[in-house]
Amino acid sequence: MKAKVYVTLKKGVLDPQGKAIHHSAELMGFTQLADIRQGKYFEISFNDSVGEAEAREAAESISRDVLANPVIEDFSVEIEG
Amino acid sequence: MKAKVYVTLKKGVLDPQGKAIHHSAELMGFTQLADIRQGKYFEISFNDSVGEAEAREAAESISRDVLANPVIEDFSVEIEG
Repeated sequence: MKAKVYVTLKKGVLDPQGKAIHHSAELMGFTQLADIRQGKYFEISFNDSVGEAEAREAAESISRDVLANPVIEDFSVEIEG
Repeated sequence: MKAKVYVTLKKGVLDPQGKAIHHSAELMGFTQLADIRQGKYFEISFNDSVGEAEAREAAESISRDVLANPVIEDFSVEIEG
């Protein structure tokens, strides 16, 4: 069982790293971009004995406590077999 | 048109940050984890005039040149309407 966790900055939170990437891309000639936002991505592999419900619960708990800062970031969890 | 880009370390490349997260999660009582790998996630928003094919091509080109280090990282691109 594997969980994919996406952590993104909440709307309205400034993203200077994303702005820098946007600027670099524009200098390279990509002028059709409206915006680039940077986030984080994690792959959590569980032991074989772990079922889907337990994996989702553990992944959400880890995301809330370790991977994301809930004040400025949102996260979403996807479970894969 | 929006592109989601996932950048992950290639298999076999050491991921000390992922190892540190794994260790922290274990100390918090999550002992059912086999592995955690950290990656990066980007959301690229395109201007309204950009079609799907152009968005995919631009996103892959930006990923290759700016977002990922092709020596140690893989990337994948998803396009959303």
